[in-house]
Amino acid sequence: MIRVDLPQKDMPRKWYNIQADMSEPLAPPIHPGTKEPVRLEDLQAIFPDELIKQEVSTERFIDIPEEILNIYKIWRPSPLMRAKKLEEFLQTPAKIYYKYEGVSPAGSHKPNTAVPQAYYNKKAGIKRLATETGAGQWGSALSLAGAYFGIEIMVYMVKVSYDQKPYRKFMIETWGGKVVPSPSPLTQIGRKMLEEDPNTNGSLGLAISEAVEDALSRKDTNYALGSVLNHVCLHQTIIGEEAIKQFQIINDYPDVVIGCVGGGSNFAGISFPYIREKMNGKKIDIIAVEPSACPTMTKGLYAYDYGDIAGLTPIIMMYTLGHKFMPPSIHAGGLRYHGMAPLVSYFAKKGLISARAYTQTEVFKAASDFAKTEGLIVAPESSHAVKAAIDEALKSKEEKNPKTILFNLSGHGYFDLVSYDKFNTGQLSDFHLAGEEIKKALEHLPLTNKN
Amino acid sequence: MIRVDLPQKDMPRKWYNIQADMSEPLAPPIHPGTKEPVRLEDLQAIFPDELIKQEVSTERFIDIPEEILNIYKIWRPSPLMRAKKLEEFLQTPAKIYYKYEGVSPAGSHKPNTAVPQAYYNKKAGIKRLATETGAGQWGSALSLAGAYFGIEIMVYMVKVSYDQKPYRKFMIETWGGKVVPSPSPLTQIGRKMLEEDPNTNGSLGLAISEAVEDALSRKDTNYALGSVLNHVCLHQTIIGEEAIKQFQIINDYPDVVIGCVGGGSNFAGISFPYIREKMNGKKIDIIAVEPSACPTMTKGLYAYDYGDIAGLTPIIMMYTLGHKFMPPSIHAGGLRYHGMAPLVSYFAKKGLISARAYTQTEVFKAASDFAKTEGLIVAPESSHAVKAAIDEALKSKEEKNPKTILFNLSGHGYFDLVSYDKFNTGQLSDFHLAGEEIKKALEHLPLTNKN
Repeated sequence: MIRVDLPQKDMPRKWYNIQADMSEPLAPPIHPGTKEPVRLEDLQAIFPDELIKQEVSTERFIDIPEEILNIYKIWRPSPLMRAKKLEEFLQTPAKIYYKYEGVSPAGSHKPNTAVPQAYYNKKAGIKRLATETGAGQWGSALSLAGAYFGIEIMVYMVKVSYDQKPYRKFMIETWGGKVVPSPSPLTQIGRKMLEEDPNTNGSLGLAISEAVEDALSRKDTNYALGSVLNHVCLHQTIIGEEAIKQFQIINDYPDVVIGCVGGGSNFAGISFPYIREKMNGKKIDIIAVEPSACPTMTKGLYAYDYGDIAGLTPIIMMYTLGHKFMPPSIHAGGLRYHGMAPLVSYFAKKGLISARAYTQTEVFKAASDFAKTEGLIVAPESSHAVKAAIDEALKSKEEKNPKTILFNLSGHGYFDLVSYDKFNTGQLSDFHLAGEEIKKALEHLPLTNKN
Repeated sequence: MIRVDLPQKDMPRKWYNIQADMSEPLAPPIHPGTKEPVRLEDLQAIFPDELIKQEVSTERFIDIPEEILNIYKIWRPSPLMRAKKLEEFLQTPAKIYYKYEGVSPAGSHKPNTAVPQAYYNKKAGIKRLATETGAGQWGSALSLAGAYFGIEIMVYMVKVSYDQKPYRKFMIETWGGKVVPSPSPLTQIGRKMLEEDPNTNGSLGLAISEAVEDALSRKDTNYALGSVLNHVCLHQTIIGEEAIKQFQIINDYPDVVIGCVGGGSNFAGISFPYIREKMNGKKIDIIAVEPSACPTMTKGLYAYDYGDIAGLTPIIMMYTLGHKFMPPSIHAGGLRYHGMAPLVSYFAKKGLISARAYTQTEVFKAASDFAKTEGLIVAPESSHAVKAAIDEALKSKEEKNPKTILFNLSGHGYFDLVSYDKFNTGQLSDFHLAGEEIKKALEHLPLTNKN
C-alpha cells in the first residue's frame, strides 16, 4: 500500500488539547502596556469567547462541531503516504511515511485552523475578520474559510509580497476576500508608516499591527492569527490524530516524527498527539526542523518576548531570537519568525522534542530528490521536514536499524517554482549567522528573566 | 459522505478499450505523403510496439502492468467528491459529484497516460522521449513520468508560453526534463522557421513537427502525445472505471456524465466506461463541453483531416474545424485544438454523446461560484465541465427531477490565477465566431469526403 486512506466515517471527531497533559500551566501572557497578565477582556476585544476558552482550556479532548467536520471532509482525512520510491533511491531499510496536507484547497495545513476560526467567529455574530499575511498562505486559507461561512475577510499583506507574489493575492480575491498592501492608508499605524517612508516594503510585524487596529476599531470585526497561539495548535492536532489511526490500519508505528517549524502550528499538529503517546510510554524521537537562517529553537532563548516586531502583542514565554531579529530573506518565508508557539517551546524545554536546523541549499536538494522520486513538489517550508526525514533514513541505513519515519508534508510548492528554479540553476545562497545578530536582538527582551 | 474513497486494493487493474465495443472499426489513418493507410512501420519509427498494439487493439480490457499501478497509487484512486455546498448554493434537488484529477503531482489527468507511455518506451529500450507542449500541462506530466522511470524528456514548448508561463517550465526542469522554446535551432524545421521570422511566437503545430523530427532523427528517442490517440484515451479510462466502483460504494448511479473536450482524452477517461454501460442498457446523458471559441463538435465537420497545422501527421477521421483553423486566445489553452480524438468523434457521430459549447465568461463565472462554495480553484479547461454540471443541476431544479450528475474535474487552476484575476476584475472578453472563419478553414480538408 502506497497510500493509507482513513475512511471519512473514521475521521477523528475531537481535537487533542495538550494543555491537559502538562505538569504545570504555561507561563501567563503579559499585557504589553500594563506588564500584568493579560485579562479576559483584553482578548474579548478581538477574539470570540469560544476561541478564548480553547486558548486556556485544560480539557483533554475538544469536540469538533459538525459544521466544521463537514468542511474538513472536503480534503480530510488527508492521506498518509509511503515514500517507497524515495526509500529505494536512498537504499535505506527505513520506511518513510508522510502526512500530505497539500490536498486542501488552499494547498497547506492552514485551513485546518482557518475553518474553525471563521466558524466560531460567525457563531459569535462577527461579520468580518482582519488578518495579516506574509507570502499569502495564511491570508488565502482564511479567505477560503470566509467563503465557506459567508464572512468577510480583510487581509493586510506585506507590501513586498503583495507586489512580488500576485498569485496568492488573486487566490484571496477569487474566494471573495479583500487584500491590501501593508502599510495601507486604512489604519493609523499604516498612514504613519507611509508618511515616514512611502516606499517601505512593509513587514509582518507591521501588518499584524494594522490587522489588530482594524479589529479593535470595528465592532463587527475580529482578528485571526494563523500560528503560535494555543487554539491554533489545537485545531492542527487533527493531523496527528489521523496519523495514529492510519498507522493502526497498516499495523505499524513511527519511531521518528518530524515537522518543520516557523510559528509551530503544523509541527504541533503532527507531533502533539505523539507527545501524548510518548508521555504514555512510547519510544518516539520527535524532531522540529527550522532554517539555519532563523534558528529559534537551536540558538534562541526560552524567555518572555513580544510576538511582533513593534511590541504591540502580549509578551509570551517562548523560544525566541528577540522580537527585533530580522531573519535573512530565505525562500521558506513561512519559517521566518523570531518566536515559537509557547506550547511547542514548553515541550522542547522539557526535552520531549528535539530541534535541528538546515540551510536552504540542503533542504532544496532534499526537495529536489523528493520531486524526482515521489513526484510531489513540496513547499520550501516543508522541504525542511523532507531533509530531516532523509537524514534519519540514511542514519537508519548506516546503523542497519530499520526505522519507521513519519513527517508532515505541510504544503505543496506550486507557488514556489521560482525558488526551485533558483536551486536548479545554482543561484541559491545560504546565510550563516555569525551569532552577533542573534546576541544583539536578544538584548531587547522586554522582561528581565532570560532563563 | 462528502468524499468517496476507493481503497487502493480495489483500484481497477485494467483499462477499458472501447474499440472492442464498436459496430465497425475506426476509419484507417491515412499517410500524409502516400495518402495510403498508415503502415505499422511508419508508427514504429516513433512509438514502441506495445503502444501501437494498444492503438489498434480490439481486446475489451487491457491489464495495467504492476509497475504502472504502483505509480498510479501515488495519487489514485482519485477521490469522487460530492459538491454539497454547491448544491445548497444552487438550491437544486440534484446531487452533483465530481472526479477530482487535480490530485496528481502534475495537477491534472495527464499523468494517467504519461506514466504508461514512459513505462512502455522504457521497456522497449528507449532512453529519451520528445514531445511538444502548449501551456505546459502535458510537458510537465511527461517530465514527471520520465523522472519515475529514469527516461530523458525533451519538451518543445510553444515560444509564447515558454516566455509567458515560466512556472510550468520550472516544473519540467524540477523533474529533470529539458525544455526549449519552439521554434528551436535544434531541428531543421525549427531553424527554417527561425530564419523566416526570428521573433515568431511559435505554435502547437510547429512544436509537434519539431518533436516528431527529433524522434525520427535519433534511434534512442521516441515521440509521445498527450491526447487524441486511441492509446491515450485508453489509459485515461481508469477515471471512469474508478467512478463506477465509487458509485457502487454509495449505492448511487449518475444520470448525467460530463467532461470538457480539447483533444478529448479526459472526456474519454470519464465517459468511455459509461458509454459501455449505456450500450448495455443504462440511461445516461453523456455530455462533451467545449469552448464557443473552438467549437469542434458543435460546429465542425466529421471528416478526414490532419492532426496538426503543418499537415505532417497522419490524416484521421474526426470532428474538425479544419487544421488551418486558429482558435482565438482563450484562457483554456488546453481546449484550443481544431480536431477531436477519433474515438470520441465516432461516438458523437453515433449519437451516444452530445456536445455543447460555452463562452469563457460563462465558464469562469461557474468556476468562481465553485471556488466560493466548494473551495477548489479549477483549471479554465475544467471550468467548462463545471458550467455544464451547474446548468444540468438548475435544469433538474426547474423540472423538479432530482438527478445525479457526475463531471470530471480534470485539473486544478493554481497556475491560472492570472486568468481568474482577469475575470474578477471584469477584463475577460468572449469570442463570437461569425462562422466565416470556420467555413474558410474547412475548405482546406485534405481528402474529398466531408460526410
